[in-house]
Amino acid sequence: MTDYLTDGAEIYRRSFATIRAEAELDRLPSDVERVVVRMIHSCGMTDLARDVAFTPDVVKAGHDALRAGAPILTDAKMIASGVTRRRLPADNDVVCTLADPRVPDLATKLDTTRSAAALELWRERLPGSVVAIGNAPTALFRLLELLDEGVGAPAAIIGVPVGFIGAVESKEELVAKAPTPYLVVHGRRGGSAMAVAALNAIAQEAEL
Amino acid sequence: MTDYLTDGAEIYRRSFATIRAEAELDRLPSDVERVVVRMIHSCGMTDLARDVAFTPDVVKAGHDALRAGAPILTDAKMIASGVTRRRLPADNDVVCTLADPRVPDLATKLDTTRSAAALELWRERLPGSVVAIGNAPTALFRLLELLDEGVGAPAAIIGVPVGFIGAVESKEELVAKAPTPYLVVHGRRGGSAMAVAALNAIAQEAEL
Repeated sequence: MTDYLTDGAEIYRRSFATIRAEAELDRLPSDVERVVVRMIHSCGMTDLARDVAFTPDVVKAGHDALRAGAPILTDAKMIASGVTRRRLPADNDVVCTLADPRVPDLATKLDTTRSAAALELWRERLPGSVVAIGNAPTALFRLLELLDEGVGAPAAIIGVPVGFIGAVESKEELVAKAPTPYLVVHGRRGGSAMAVAALNAIAQEAEL
Repeated sequence: MTDYLTDGAEIYRRSFATIRAEAELDRLPSDVERVVVRMIHSCGMTDLARDVAFTPDVVKAGHDALRAGAPILTDAKMIASGVTRRRLPADNDVVCTLADPRVPDLATKLDTTRSAAALELWRERLPGSVVAIGNAPTALFRLLELLDEGVGAPAAIIGVPVGFIGAVESKEELVAKAPTPYLVVHGRRGGSAMAVAALNAIAQEAEL
């Protein structure tokens, strides 16, 4: 067998050191840098930093909201599952409404995807929340429609839907409208692991 | 608001068509191609196909095992959470032992990470199972050690640990040893979303 490193803390330290040596992070405020390092760690790609767009206040806004007890709202069960509960500062609720039994009918009625229809069940909790969209571009589009309708804005939006249809455009629309502090990864890349990495980094400042 | 596509089935169809138009899939057997298309769909990167290595029997071996009732064993709770239960052909168990209360002590005793120590609790269920490692390189290294010790091999291994320390090497070791049918993504890329995509595609042939 090949020798390999088995010290978990040392693996983290060396991973973060490799990321900081390779990625172009100079343009990022220090709190955003810490979040982006975690996102790179989750996907193994140091060039991710190039595609990150953000408002400089997004990490502070998200962290302050969580400290004040705000819920996390997300479009995918995997993301809700991945949030490390002990990192959350106020035993915050982590909500994914996709599996709610009302969603299939809502999707039919609204003529949209289940991922987008699930946001109908976010309306009351959306103002001041921390939102992470890591799967469906239609969920991010629908979120922007809800805000256009006048639903109160979340404290921060992590916008990393992934894929080939609508992912690029939904993130461009979020950046163009900028309804509230946001962090996105432009392009097709994104996904639940990246969303979880961002949420866990925003929840707690410690890296290890 | 930008117009956007809201027909879920049509989004899938166009996504898969884009992937098949862009990715180099010619070298793949048709059942492996279907799995790789799903993996690309989960990460938004058509160049992923280049880094895929596999034994030609891996998808059939995994699918047959699941049909016969084999459990899925995985290193991350997010992966267990992401497996679509209705796609499983035999109401298969989906097992992640990382949160088992015995794991921290096992990690201390074995002087390794919790992710690797969690595999001690796989020994009885490992023979004939379907394994997906999508997070920790140390878990994949430890799996290979268990097989070296003579523990019965799984029916198939999805090897997509991610990151900067050991990910590259653990996947190379799996391919060099080839103890059982496998599918890996060489390099630093991998992750829980990719592991879930592979598992869901192996579980059921239908794409939609």
